[in-house]
Amino acid sequence: MTEFIPPGTRFHPLPSPFRMKRGGALHGARVAYETWGTLNERRDNAVLIVTGLSPDAHAARTPGNPADGWWEPMLGPGKPIDTDRWFVVCVNSLGSCKGSTGPASVNPDTGALYRLDFPELSVEDGANAAFDVVRGLGIEQLTCIIGNSMGGMTALAYLLLHPGAARTHINISGSAQALPFSIAIRSLQREAIRLDPQWNGGQYDDETYPESGMRMARKLGVITYRSALEWDGRFGRVRLESDRPDEEPFGLEFQVESYLEGHARRFVRRFDPNCYLYLSRSMDWFDLAEYADGDVMQGLAKIRVQRALAIGAATDILFPLQQQQQIAEGLAAGGAQAEFLPLESPQGHDAFLVDYDRFGPAVAGFLAGI
Amino acid sequence: MTEFIPPGTRFHPLPSPFRMKRGGALHGARVAYETWGTLNERRDNAVLIVTGLSPDAHAARTPGNPADGWWEPMLGPGKPIDTDRWFVVCVNSLGSCKGSTGPASVNPDTGALYRLDFPELSVEDGANAAFDVVRGLGIEQLTCIIGNSMGGMTALAYLLLHPGAARTHINISGSAQALPFSIAIRSLQREAIRLDPQWNGGQYDDETYPESGMRMARKLGVITYRSALEWDGRFGRVRLESDRPDEEPFGLEFQVESYLEGHARRFVRRFDPNCYLYLSRSMDWFDLAEYADGDVMQGLAKIRVQRALAIGAATDILFPLQQQQQIAEGLAAGGAQAEFLPLESPQGHDAFLVDYDRFGPAVAGFLAGI
Repeated sequence: MTEFIPPGTRFHPLPSPFRMKRGGALHGARVAYETWGTLNERRDNAVLIVTGLSPDAHAARTPGNPADGWWEPMLGPGKPIDTDRWFVVCVNSLGSCKGSTGPASVNPDTGALYRLDFPELSVEDGANAAFDVVRGLGIEQLTCIIGNSMGGMTALAYLLLHPGAARTHINISGSAQALPFSIAIRSLQREAIRLDPQWNGGQYDDETYPESGMRMARKLGVITYRSALEWDGRFGRVRLESDRPDEEPFGLEFQVESYLEGHARRFVRRFDPNCYLYLSRSMDWFDLAEYADGDVMQGLAKIRVQRALAIGAATDILFPLQQQQQIAEGLAAGGAQAEFLPLESPQGHDAFLVDYDRFGPAVAGFLAGI
Repeated sequence: MTEFIPPGTRFHPLPSPFRMKRGGALHGARVAYETWGTLNERRDNAVLIVTGLSPDAHAARTPGNPADGWWEPMLGPGKPIDTDRWFVVCVNSLGSCKGSTGPASVNPDTGALYRLDFPELSVEDGANAAFDVVRGLGIEQLTCIIGNSMGGMTALAYLLLHPGAARTHINISGSAQALPFSIAIRSLQREAIRLDPQWNGGQYDDETYPESGMRMARKLGVITYRSALEWDGRFGRVRLESDRPDEEPFGLEFQVESYLEGHARRFVRRFDPNCYLYLSRSMDWFDLAEYADGDVMQGLAKIRVQRALAIGAATDILFPLQQQQQIAEGLAAGGAQAEFLPLESPQGHDAFLVDYDRFGPAVAGFLAGI
């Protein structure tokens, strides 16, 4: 049904069974990935990118797929993540619907889609799956693991569960544990999907699809991914043009409403609702404190990495700056040379996908210093 | 159907017809109100309170209704709004379902409920209705008009449309115009209600009631009424007790989710969905810039008041502090002795209903200086 796999995607078979943190196992599962640049002979120039909830592995153009990737300005020859120097790998998260095995994939035990029979998914499972991809490429130690948003969680799990697996780390708008505001937002997004009668306990198809629920979930996402400050300047109180009035009672009237509607329409049929539910909840569950008797700083301090950079946007309400500061402090407590770099981007949580003038030099500067 | 009128409520008949700003008129409409204290002989000790979206007129205990009011710690003998000194009036907003005429009231022209036949509602209509109550009580000029949240908008409209109607003004967590982040949130709340099949274009009853939509709307409201900072300390990552598991797939697991669920359950059957839609949209429409060629500061500067205080919470994401600062600066530009007082309350937009240690002295101090 609803898997969305970019052309040129490569696949890594996971060990079978692949055991999941919270119980159960996957059989014959795989991880989608793409690579850029060349692995050198010493195999010590590899950089891994782990992503937020929705991206695929196509972070930038490849010979096999010349379409722009979701992080195009960051990745390529001479760009902040310079593929003339680095061999870069980007994986699609386990549990997603963009090539890696997830709830929208076929369960080999039944021949039907997993749907809600997919085992409970944790961020750690995604980290272990990514680790297996890297090992499969013959890389013993990454030069750097870069994680954005949910990927910031994945990267921390990767480092904690696989000591020595990376020399350095860039954490972008990430967090070491989910906090209640973000849990509340994600819970409401999931509720919107679950309340849609067409979700039907996960048993939808293309004809009876939980479009309304996904639209609500995505709009709430976009609201919390951006910032009030940005929107004041961008939309203000501008109304829609009068030649396209919305005749529905209480229908759209302001540009900001139309912007949300457009974002939602583009998303709802391009991401599988069950995968969304699984990945969303995996973030709620993530908490490095579990590894250190409830102390998240101690959990971070268990990570061994030589250098680290934690960056984020001052206007991020979903993964607020204090969480990136905590990451830097916790990694420093574990012996890393760790820097916290708050950026004044107005675009909120999504700034790392938009404000390349700030995020680009921060990432480039760190990698240049390796 | 769904009007909720506290015992002891008094009613003021509005002139009939009562013309609405955006067209149409109400016939035989009324405004619910309560009063505290005694109007002095000179009739110059009156204070009017205009409220946020959901409260009734029962701000505090009265002889006719000894139940605690929604602003009990603020209002009474010796309290910040001292009813030994002031004659205090609180009105239920026009368009509400708590005694004032609104979409849940009977339309005298048809004998049926107004529902979506209620004329378009603006904040200005609420201000004009409140003004008529005050005149009906024999008060030519208020000593002070106090408005919270939406009431902060109502109060500014009241002052602009009725020059000389009040000598002073306290604006609490209010704004002079709706900005896109708050419009987006309210738009999504309305969409949640409209998407509920049981809303049915406004034609619901107690048996087929848009409960899911109202629950979503209320949860989103509560998320934006409070603050991430408060919830970090209050809920952290605490789980629900294991003896009440939620068996639903992706059901409630964290305390913060249960807190939202409890708030929503208490609300959904106690506020009429159509009234919610009307009041919500009236806020989106509010913009003092309409009165000054698109310049909101000039709109504020058209208000004539002797003294003013604008206060709010640093953690408010719905009516952020800059909006209260703008009110103070705009009123000062109009000749008022106006003060902006930002408060460090962690409770977000709702702080004025919770953080009495900060809001109480601020209001008391201003009123004592009159």
